[in-house]
Amino acid sequence: MIQKLINSIKKTQAPIVVGLDPKLSFIPDHIKNKSFNEYGKTLEGAADAIWQFNKLIVDATYDLIPAVKPQIAMYEQFGIPGMVAFDKTVKYCKEKELIVIGDVKRGDIGSTSESYAIAHLGKIDIDGVNVDVFDEDFATVNPYLGTDGIKPFVDICNEHDKGIFILVKTSNPSSGEFQDKLMDGKPLYEHVARMVDKWGADSMDADYSNVGAVVGATYPEVGKVLRDVMPKSFILVPGYGAQGGKAEDLVHYFNKDGLGAIVNSSRGIIAAYKQDKYASFGSEGFADAARAAVIDMKEDIGKALSQTR
Amino acid sequence: MIQKLINSIKKTQAPIVVGLDPKLSFIPDHIKNKSFNEYGKTLEGAADAIWQFNKLIVDATYDLIPAVKPQIAMYEQFGIPGMVAFDKTVKYCKEKELIVIGDVKRGDIGSTSESYAIAHLGKIDIDGVNVDVFDEDFATVNPYLGTDGIKPFVDICNEHDKGIFILVKTSNPSSGEFQDKLMDGKPLYEHVARMVDKWGADSMDADYSNVGAVVGATYPEVGKVLRDVMPKSFILVPGYGAQGGKAEDLVHYFNKDGLGAIVNSSRGIIAAYKQDKYASFGSEGFADAARAAVIDMKEDIGKALSQTR
Repeated sequence: MIQKLINSIKKTQAPIVVGLDPKLSFIPDHIKNKSFNEYGKTLEGAADAIWQFNKLIVDATYDLIPAVKPQIAMYEQFGIPGMVAFDKTVKYCKEKELIVIGDVKRGDIGSTSESYAIAHLGKIDIDGVNVDVFDEDFATVNPYLGTDGIKPFVDICNEHDKGIFILVKTSNPSSGEFQDKLMDGKPLYEHVARMVDKWGADSMDADYSNVGAVVGATYPEVGKVLRDVMPKSFILVPGYGAQGGKAEDLVHYFNKDGLGAIVNSSRGIIAAYKQDKYASFGSEGFADAARAAVIDMKEDIGKALSQTR
Repeated sequence: MIQKLINSIKKTQAPIVVGLDPKLSFIPDHIKNKSFNEYGKTLEGAADAIWQFNKLIVDATYDLIPAVKPQIAMYEQFGIPGMVAFDKTVKYCKEKELIVIGDVKRGDIGSTSESYAIAHLGKIDIDGVNVDVFDEDFATVNPYLGTDGIKPFVDICNEHDKGIFILVKTSNPSSGEFQDKLMDGKPLYEHVARMVDKWGADSMDADYSNVGAVVGATYPEVGKVLRDVMPKSFILVPGYGAQGGKAEDLVHYFNKDGLGAIVNSSRGIIAAYKQDKYASFGSEGFADAARAAVIDMKEDIGKALSQTR
């Protein structure tokens, strides 16, 4: 699967992913009101608004980008209708030939991790009949439970040509509380990264592994170190833009081949129309604003990368 | 919320929780076949079988126990219909006045953790209208992202009188890979436990905190240490029975007041009819077998507790 992502990155010349994290506050009134008029101010109404919003964002950006990353929490908070919107979003993005990274941050003991891996990347065996479930292309996974929480995901990656990104160093302010603690002279995130490299060796797909890592844009010095620790792993980089990560900080997340990282932006793209820079699009033009923000992000990262080569 | 759990434990004299983790292989053929006849070997068919199975297990045990713990992965793997079965199970158990611990192991950066907390414990604000979502009583939470991944859950606990159990030392064989690593001379799980104690101070409910911890039955020596580190936190103890944890090992998870721990058994109860000990119930009597297994578990743990007092 990682080769599919690489091919799409090369084709679009864009090592970026758009985070489809549609808070209700991001959705323009004309969309929300239409959904609320039809379904009321209910879970169904909110979920419909999210789905309509996502669809227009995808329509306006899919030709520019290799991948999207729906954050499942933003859907789960709207209950069953929200999960239906998640499912529709995944399917719609795949129809548009986008690679879908399910940002689900699942992880549990072995037998339970297997169920999560099936839910998001595999097929469920129903009395001999194999059925697709949410069927994203990649999922994010939490490493706290160790190898037996990860291995079922790696097995499913191999069986169904899928990929995962394991949380190594997250972008949030308090990520250091546990992740930065020194053990045997090295921070926990580095121990996790070494295991990512090891787990990844069991799921190689040409030059890269289907097992990648999440390393926040907000900690560029860490990104530089971890790039060397996991040479075969793609790094999914959240935290660009709204969370403070800058393009020039991100060049060290890439390998010398120009690959090895994919940078996420969520509200910086999908809620671009709320920024002064894109205000002229207005709320009716939110999707065009998102397109403009994608083009700017692509240029911003492209320029930073070319200046260091 | 923890006081509600304590009251139910006292009333039932049972510091135990039944894990509603219905794998298809646990469900007797007569239930599965009925669902498959109605809905086919589909996600809907599987989810209906799970729901019918759960309902009969709950009907047969609810008067004996304070709480249930549905493991959401077992539902998520059946997609939207599976999530509907989860939702129905939660609602049904609450109607039966059982406390519901959603074993969801969620956790993310602050703003995203807030969405997960809303999804499982809070209410979602839909343009000024507050709507219940899955509305469990407790949820399990992963600590890898640190305080800002936990705080939104604690806030929601305070706002809606709910509780959480934070993963500290999990029951699986490889939990030690990261959790046991020494930092400043102490294992990571102990650092997490100290934070649980600290986070818990912000959500006290009489003598105990709404912020509890997960510590596996399979590591009794760890349980003994962590009991003292987090005196105000309830410990949710998975790993009894099928995973190898024994009643006599569990006494150290309890405080001197006889409280402070609640022991989970999943397949040991819900699939009891598959054990030699309960084989005489047959698959038609699976729910009665579950009841017998609950009575035995209650006695097993009660005896171990009384022998140490």
